[in-house]
Amino acid sequence: MTVEEMLQTHPRPTSLDRGALQRCIYECVDCAATCTSCADACLGEQDVADLVRCVRLCLDCADTCDTTGRILIRQTEPDLGVLRSATGACTVACRACREECERHAEHHEHCRICARSCARCEEACEALLATMDQTNGKG
Amino acid sequence: MTVEEMLQTHPRPTSLDRGALQRCIYECVDCAATCTSCADACLGEQDVADLVRCVRLCLDCADTCDTTGRILIRQTEPDLGVLRSATGACTVACRACREECERHAEHHEHCRICARSCARCEEACEALLATMDQTNGKG
Amino acid sequence: MTVEEMLQTHPRPTSLDRGALQRCIYECVDCAATCTSCADACLGEQDVADLVRCVRLCLDCADTCDTTGRILIRQTEPDLGVLRSATGACTVACRACREECERHAEHHEHCRICARSCARCEEACEALLATMDQTNGKG
Amino acid sequence: MTVEEMLQTHPRPTSLDRGALQRCIYECVDCAATCTSCADACLGEQDVADLVRCVRLCLDCADTCDTTGRILIRQTEPDLGVLRSATGACTVACRACREECERHAEHHEHCRICARSCARCEEACEALLATMDQTNGKG
Repeated sequence: MTVEEMLQTHPRPTSLDRGALQRCIYECVDCAATCTSCADACLGEQDVADLVRCVRLCLDCADTCDTTGRILIRQTEPDLGVLRSATGACTVACRACREECERHAEHHEHCRICARSCARCEEACEALLATMDQTNGKG
Repeated sequence: MTVEEMLQTHPRPTSLDRGALQRCIYECVDCAATCTSCADACLGEQDVADLVRCVRLCLDCADTCDTTGRILIRQTEPDLGVLRSATGACTVACRACREECERHAEHHEHCRICARSCARCEEACEALLATMDQTNGKG
Repeated sequence: MTVEEMLQTHPRPTSLDRGALQRCIYECVDCAATCTSCADACLGEQDVADLVRCVRLCLDCADTCDTTGRILIRQTEPDLGVLRSATGACTVACRACREECERHAEHHEHCRICARSCARCEEACEALLATMDQTNGKG
Repeated sequence: MTVEEMLQTHPRPTSLDRGALQRCIYECVDCAATCTSCADACLGEQDVADLVRCVRLCLDCADTCDTTGRILIRQTEPDLGVLRSATGACTVACRACREECERHAEHHEHCRICARSCARCEEACEALLATMDQTNGKG
């Protein structure tokens, strides 16, 4: 994605771990699109009535990943508390959505793929949070 | 706002405190619009260079309030952990934005108004979180 | 809403018709929340399978109103072509959502309320577009 | 991006040109992130006062690409009029942002990169719109 190239030209480079940040931004953007798609695919299934909780959690996860991605993309004058709570909320939304998608993964390939995307985003958020804790300790 | 009327017609009424929920939804929607406006008004000021941190935190707060508002509006199959972490992240974003806006409140009326809007949203989120803790204790 | 107070403190007041702009911003923000709620209420109904198109169009309308509201809230260095096409797209999304909600208005009160909210936003967008055409003619 | 894999598992495949649609979704998602980053990088520059219009148009373009990407990702019960006006509005927002970013491309590498991203998204939207016109003619 072009945003990775953008971050290298930024006038105020991040003090966060660059690799962990870039991975987390990518996974948030990717997961937001995947969850938007899974909510819609579930809505198009004949057994939509059995997928209501999955649609709900995919919508919440898409919105959360979208906002967390935007907040992490911004490098100018960051507030570490805001970054931390946004990334933490994203971990929670991804976990809830992944667990529900896993329940439908055998019957719906899009749920299987979405669960993997949520798992990757959850891990990337946790990894970034771990580097933030170190930043805090130092600072 | 029409959404309050909507919630009374919902087929699956919330188990959360209705008054605290409705107030929090209203404040999230109101604060998202206010912060979008304050970021833009700061950008239009002659001393924009002194308002860079204010623009940044207003953009983060607008995105966070927008997403939290959407998550709280949804009543079908809620995940309490997702609601809680979203509302908590909103409290943090509102507090950071309010504190920065307060620094410019004497010079810029829009920052003064925005700080009050963030303060109301912060309080509404904290009040809703307090009722969620009670729900958890009971459940 | 606080954003109306904000616009009166803006350092670069709009050249658009103030009343038409404020009404359109309010209706966009209100309709975005209403459509988010109607998509969710439909999802919670027992006859969700008959409401799939309604959910879809409510999600599209919520996203479109949200973005159009943000673009119209911003007053600094506007591009009239961007304002015009965003407002036009919002008219189209509101009309499609209203027509679908009207089909379910007898059976679902939330669809009846949502159809009215979409109708008001559609009218406010059309009224604002009409004032933009006059601005263009003069300018 | 995972969303391309998702679309191949969708229960209701699109009637639009698959290649043009997938390219447009990718460019919208990519451009939304790039414009969020360029607005923020401009805000972090010492000559931010000269970049105010660029920040404004990047914010509008990010929001528009975000919403258009979401609408195009959804395949269930699409309304061709909504798809068309959203994609059209995205073309306009990308063009305005590209033209402004090009003015700063010599001095700011992030504006140069962002202008290219907007140009690709503008082209992808126009190409998708061209296939929609053919769909309309046939249908």
